Amino acid sequence: MNIMISINDIHNNHVLINDVISIFGWIRSRRDSKSGFSFIDVYDGSCFKTIQAIVKKSIPNYKTEVLKLTIGCSICLTGILILSLGKKQKYEIQVLKIKVLGWIDNPHHYPISAKKHTYEYLREVPHLRSRTNFIGVITRIRNHIFYKLHHFLYKKKYFWIPTPIITSLNSEGAGSMFRVSTLNLNNIPVNHDGTINFKKDFFGKESFLTVSGQLTAESYACSMTKVYTFGPIFRAEHSNTTRHLAEFWMLEIEKAFSDLENIIILSEKIIKYVIKFVLNDCEDDIKFLYNHIDKNIFNRLQKFLSSKIIHINYIDIIKILKKSHQNFSHTVYMGMDLMSEHEKYLVDHYFKSPIIIKNYPKEIKAFYMRLNNDNKTVAAMDLLVPDIGEILGGSQREERQMVLESRLSECNLNKKKYSWYVDLRRYGSVPHSGFGLGFERLLSYITGVKNVRDLIPFPRCVKNALC
Amino acid sequence: MNIMISINDIHNNHVLINDVISIFGWIRSRRDSKSGFSFIDVYDGSCFKTIQAIVKKSIPNYKTEVLKLTIGCSICLTGILILSLGKKQKYEIQVLKIKVLGWIDNPHHYPISAKKHTYEYLREVPHLRSRTNFIGVITRIRNHIFYKLHHFLYKKKYFWIPTPIITSLNSEGAGSMFRVSTLNLNNIPVNHDGTINFKKDFFGKESFLTVSGQLTAESYACSMTKVYTFGPIFRAEHSNTTRHLAEFWMLEIEKAFSDLENIIILSEKIIKYVIKFVLNDCEDDIKFLYNHIDKNIFNRLQKFLSSKIIHINYIDIIKILKKSHQNFSHTVYMGMDLMSEHEKYLVDHYFKSPIIIKNYPKEIKAFYMRLNNDNKTVAAMDLLVPDIGEILGGSQREERQMVLESRLSECNLNKKKYSWYVDLRRYGSVPHSGFGLGFERLLSYITGVKNVRDLIPFPRCVKNALC
Repeated sequence: MNIMISINDIHNNHVLINDVISIFGWIRSRRDSKSGFSFIDVYDGSCFKTIQAIVKKSIPNYKTEVLKLTIGCSICLTGILILSLGKKQKYEIQVLKIKVLGWIDNPHHYPISAKKHTYEYLREVPHLRSRTNFIGVITRIRNHIFYKLHHFLYKKKYFWIPTPIITSLNSEGAGSMFRVSTLNLNNIPVNHDGTINFKKDFFGKESFLTVSGQLTAESYACSMTKVYTFGPIFRAEHSNTTRHLAEFWMLEIEKAFSDLENIIILSEKIIKYVIKFVLNDCEDDIKFLYNHIDKNIFNRLQKFLSSKIIHINYIDIIKILKKSHQNFSHTVYMGMDLMSEHEKYLVDHYFKSPIIIKNYPKEIKAFYMRLNNDNKTVAAMDLLVPDIGEILGGSQREERQMVLESRLSECNLNKKKYSWYVDLRRYGSVPHSGFGLGFERLLSYITGVKNVRDLIPFPRCVKNALC
Repeated sequence: MNIMISINDIHNNHVLINDVISIFGWIRSRRDSKSGFSFIDVYDGSCFKTIQAIVKKSIPNYKTEVLKLTIGCSICLTGILILSLGKKQKYEIQVLKIKVLGWIDNPHHYPISAKKHTYEYLREVPHLRSRTNFIGVITRIRNHIFYKLHHFLYKKKYFWIPTPIITSLNSEGAGSMFRVSTLNLNNIPVNHDGTINFKKDFFGKESFLTVSGQLTAESYACSMTKVYTFGPIFRAEHSNTTRHLAEFWMLEIEKAFSDLENIIILSEKIIKYVIKFVLNDCEDDIKFLYNHIDKNIFNRLQKFLSSKIIHINYIDIIKILKKSHQNFSHTVYMGMDLMSEHEKYLVDHYFKSPIIIKNYPKEIKAFYMRLNNDNKTVAAMDLLVPDIGEILGGSQREERQMVLESRLSECNLNKKKYSWYVDLRRYGSVPHSGFGLGFERLLSYITGVKNVRDLIPFPRCVKNALC
């Protein structure tokens, strides 16, 4: 095989004019001129831009092959890089040789034809939709954000911890879980009392897919100080919305010797960090989103960078909602959990910007969040953004063994199952805090793409798991 | 909270002599001098080294607290950074103030006491074992390798693809799978013919944990050219060995316009890249491994960097094994699958170095591997290393639709389930290849730690899933 030159290399001026190069890619379009040559546009995924190639009829396979090329065909072309006479592009390739690697079987029925396809249709062909400009853009931006999150944490000396996916802990109130099992469903082992005998299952006990890596990440924060986990997370919820996936990625950071304010500052900093790099490094891709998805994208991201997020206590949020005179379907009262209609009102209408809500009533939050001195609220925080709602949630963790144990009791959790977690407080306990950032929701906020199913390659939702 | 100075900052000379600083960490040891002061060694996980602090009896809580400090207590200490008079360390801290954040409940029963613990014992307390030097070393090296793998691929313009964890595809022969389900085990829905009615399950069909992200990664390679996936992988195998985990991490790279040789070169390059950085950047941690785990670590890694891996065809491997006169418990014959005893003989005794075996008989390899011109072998490769065996396996993928379809039939695979995969060949097919690198096995090779259960924080194995 020839050494590969990517189309991105060409557009980044890494190739010299008049060099003979070989390009591998797929046809985006072909136009034939009457004067006996063809323009073909080629993409290879390396960048948003295509490269235009000019194929003269003197090429041996011009009639037999070039004139039959359709969108999606794969080719290798060799030619001379020249400055384009056209105004649309800087460079083009004068083709010396073109080799067709893969034809399109029945071009009229090619699922990714040149016409504009709806997002809904593209979700039906997740294995082919990355051939569209749209999913190409998302793939490059997602890669960039993913890497920059790791990069930020690596530079700040956080250690990545591969926390377990399979767990025997229940969900700590984070939602329904998927069971993981190798039991034969046609022959389930049962105990004398009729309950399932999970001792016969693979792990010797009932096991699930994790809903969060936090608790195990805490154990590493309580020795390594700064850690994070970044992996798939599972929720078996039947919510068929644009914001929910049964399988999604979450970045969870855990930091010892740290309180709620520390983690709030860190969460703002890391999001600003990635936004800054996306604006700098993904220019063509962001421009596509501006043209096709969200006219507000530059404003929104630049505003996020230049402003400080509003921090507000839960108690004040309830006051605002009560005064709003909105016709909410869930009545507003002190102590209630915020529903998406309330979040929507707050960020889309009242504040018109991202906000951080903190110090929630303990009754609506998880057992591990640190009880404030009022004995009523916990040191929790959620970051809400317009259009999406919550994208990040965190808390200071309860580091006092006795308080934690009484919270476990209050929440009716099995103390024996959590005894290892209490050990972290029994032995050299430290104040610590952390947050979880929903990766696809962050992507939704940054890109302006509303449906998280377009932000993960093969979305898993209720009754839906293609490929 | 004070601004945190890490112990790593001090040892990297980021703090000025005579500066007053605050350190947060845990006690590694305490020695009391008869002349009325104590030395305490503090760790915070940021690096292998501790920092020594000198506490004079004039400190108000010297008698009430300092003299009661035991290994594992968490503290915040404020003091002056000075050059140490002792020879063991460059810096030490003259303590002005010490605050105990967390005591050790019943120090005589602290699970991570100062005595040397066995690896087996430490596996019983996975939530606390990161407090040992050993697991601290592993955590830092793992983080470094993980980041450098991403870094290498980011620089080379590979795009990270979060391929799905939950799948309805069977295992392509890669081993047993875990079922993922929300069905009520006490009330399994059954069809008229007695089979399980998976239409009632969460995804509307039988679903499993993935054994590989390759096939879905291929769909992205066939539009974005260079992609990778790096996530947890699951095998429900009952192998209770030092090399097997039911949940482990795998890096899978997929590259369009690429053949077997390309991917062999890439695999060698990426492993050399991370080894180089580990040797450069993890000096103290590698020294610990040299002292406590593997006297051969420097030799092995330097030799890997300086030599080219031997490439050898399967057919020649069989000849070597036949000539070996070893008393293998599985007889050697042309066409057989290599067992770990054969691998062991090859890399530990015959070659005494890593080797790449390629061009295996099609019968013992997966359906998607490209059939060679001999119609008998496939363009597959495995990288074997001493002590561990296979750490990486790859192949050129079958890009010819007709050959792929006949291989599906030969392997008795459900053509309908793989029709999306065949689509990648139906529409603009390209030659492509890729490999999967077992992350914990790579760590095992680099660190010299034999048991992969010590290389992942919370190992999941048959009958074993603590925390």
